[in-house]
Amino acid sequence: MIARMECLPCLVRQAKEAVCMSSGDPDLRLRILRRCLAWMAEADLDVSPPEIAAGIGRIVMELSGRDDPYREVKSLHTDMALKLLPRMDRMLAKSADPFLTGMRLAIAGNIIDLGARSQVEDADIGDTLREAMELPILGEDPEDLRRETGRAGSILYLADNAGETVFDRKFIQQMPRGRVTVAVRGGPAINDATLDDARAAGLHEVAELVSNGSPAPATVLADCSPSFQRLFAEADVVISKGQGNFESLSGVDRKVHFLFRVKCPLVADHTGYPEGSLLLLHSRG
Amino acid sequence: MIARMECLPCLVRQAKEAVCMSSGDPDLRLRILRRCLAWMAEADLDVSPPEIAAGIGRIVMELSGRDDPYREVKSLHTDMALKLLPRMDRMLAKSADPFLTGMRLAIAGNIIDLGARSQVEDADIGDTLREAMELPILGEDPEDLRRETGRAGSILYLADNAGETVFDRKFIQQMPRGRVTVAVRGGPAINDATLDDARAAGLHEVAELVSNGSPAPATVLADCSPSFQRLFAEADVVISKGQGNFESLSGVDRKVHFLFRVKCPLVADHTGYPEGSLLLLHSRG
Repeated sequence: MIARMECLPCLVRQAKEAVCMSSGDPDLRLRILRRCLAWMAEADLDVSPPEIAAGIGRIVMELSGRDDPYREVKSLHTDMALKLLPRMDRMLAKSADPFLTGMRLAIAGNIIDLGARSQVEDADIGDTLREAMELPILGEDPEDLRRETGRAGSILYLADNAGETVFDRKFIQQMPRGRVTVAVRGGPAINDATLDDARAAGLHEVAELVSNGSPAPATVLADCSPSFQRLFAEADVVISKGQGNFESLSGVDRKVHFLFRVKCPLVADHTGYPEGSLLLLHSRG
Repeated sequence: MIARMECLPCLVRQAKEAVCMSSGDPDLRLRILRRCLAWMAEADLDVSPPEIAAGIGRIVMELSGRDDPYREVKSLHTDMALKLLPRMDRMLAKSADPFLTGMRLAIAGNIIDLGARSQVEDADIGDTLREAMELPILGEDPEDLRRETGRAGSILYLADNAGETVFDRKFIQQMPRGRVTVAVRGGPAINDATLDDARAAGLHEVAELVSNGSPAPATVLADCSPSFQRLFAEADVVISKGQGNFESLSGVDRKVHFLFRVKCPLVADHTGYPEGSLLLLHSRG
């Protein structure tokens, strides 16, 4: 999915947040944000929105000298989500359909997204859990995904934000053990999970962990490592979490199951589902 | 009040909205927005936020060739507000304190602001009327303003948005007849009222109308006409509507009564009142 002019104000807002995370010096903040504006004024927009966000991320890191400005935020979100593990386990234990409950937990985790929201409060997460259990999941029939993961020899799971990864863990536990590989960002990208963040969330206990080799806040295949590209091409099933991964992979030439909440009007327009919708969609492939 | 880095994403959003109002051509829209970004990357930010908005407005008008992109929107808002006149008149007729009710109507009108919000629905206006009658007005004691306007030989009333002007008319009717001059923008500035818009709202029936000579979406004194500057300096009482006028005049060297709703975190920070507050504040002067 290609960026549109309407993405620019949202990307400037994200740039401002990243700048504020990176430095407390007002002069430096302004200098970095000005550089982002100048870059966006000239940037190639015939790419997906997260590719533009990746360019902004590079500028912020270069000029601030901070290599992972969201480190503390990611750690906070992971800790918040870890505290909810006993509650998630109780939900799964009581569930008549743990696969579906796991999937709903994974989508609940997707609401924790600093890229599209400005703050996440602890109480929000509790509300989100309840909401994600009740709202309809639109798009593809979850039975298809259940069937495919049940018989897959290899499942590639593309993670999204730190914190969300704790919820993913509960979904992955409902899949055949030993067959799931979780791919995370190859470098700091907003509040997306890197290898360190994924380990903090305990994902290594339920799946093999790999880096996709790219620091974009999405899965920009051309920027990913050859080994990740091979994994992506060869996995029997690919599950992609979050709107960023959808934006970068929606036109890809293989079947991918996208699980995410629609968080902006452009993605609503692109998918045909209103903002706020919980979606399980698969690319044509 | 001086702009801060945090103003930039909001100004980019306003630029995007103005660009979309100005042209339906996607290529031209993008070209104009890119020019705005490049300009903001270099612009002097040691000015009030509406002065930066004025620069953006100039770029949008120059490149789009549309001299008043918000004309239809302003007309629509004015018409919506005019339909509420009978209701406002009933509220005033029933009121035990028409001055205060008029002031509350004027502040209700201030919620109609495309500069800070993206859309105004008809139902919103009805809700706003009720809300503005009930919420506390914080800051200065309205009795001081009542006393000052009661004995003033000349009252200068600085208007804000088109549509809001219809509400202002009801407040102005509670002041001594023949003593009020309403000043509007000297040229198109977002959805702010110009002379044409003010006449459409019927303001000429209750006050003398003048242009301030400047097309900024605020009252940037240095950019206003000498005759307006004289009026501003010499009026016994100055009443300023809206956040834009507050941003440009808050540090001014005379007493001004500011009546507005706090619509952004920076103004909340600057005034010490939370976002959404209804304020009557006076500058030290």
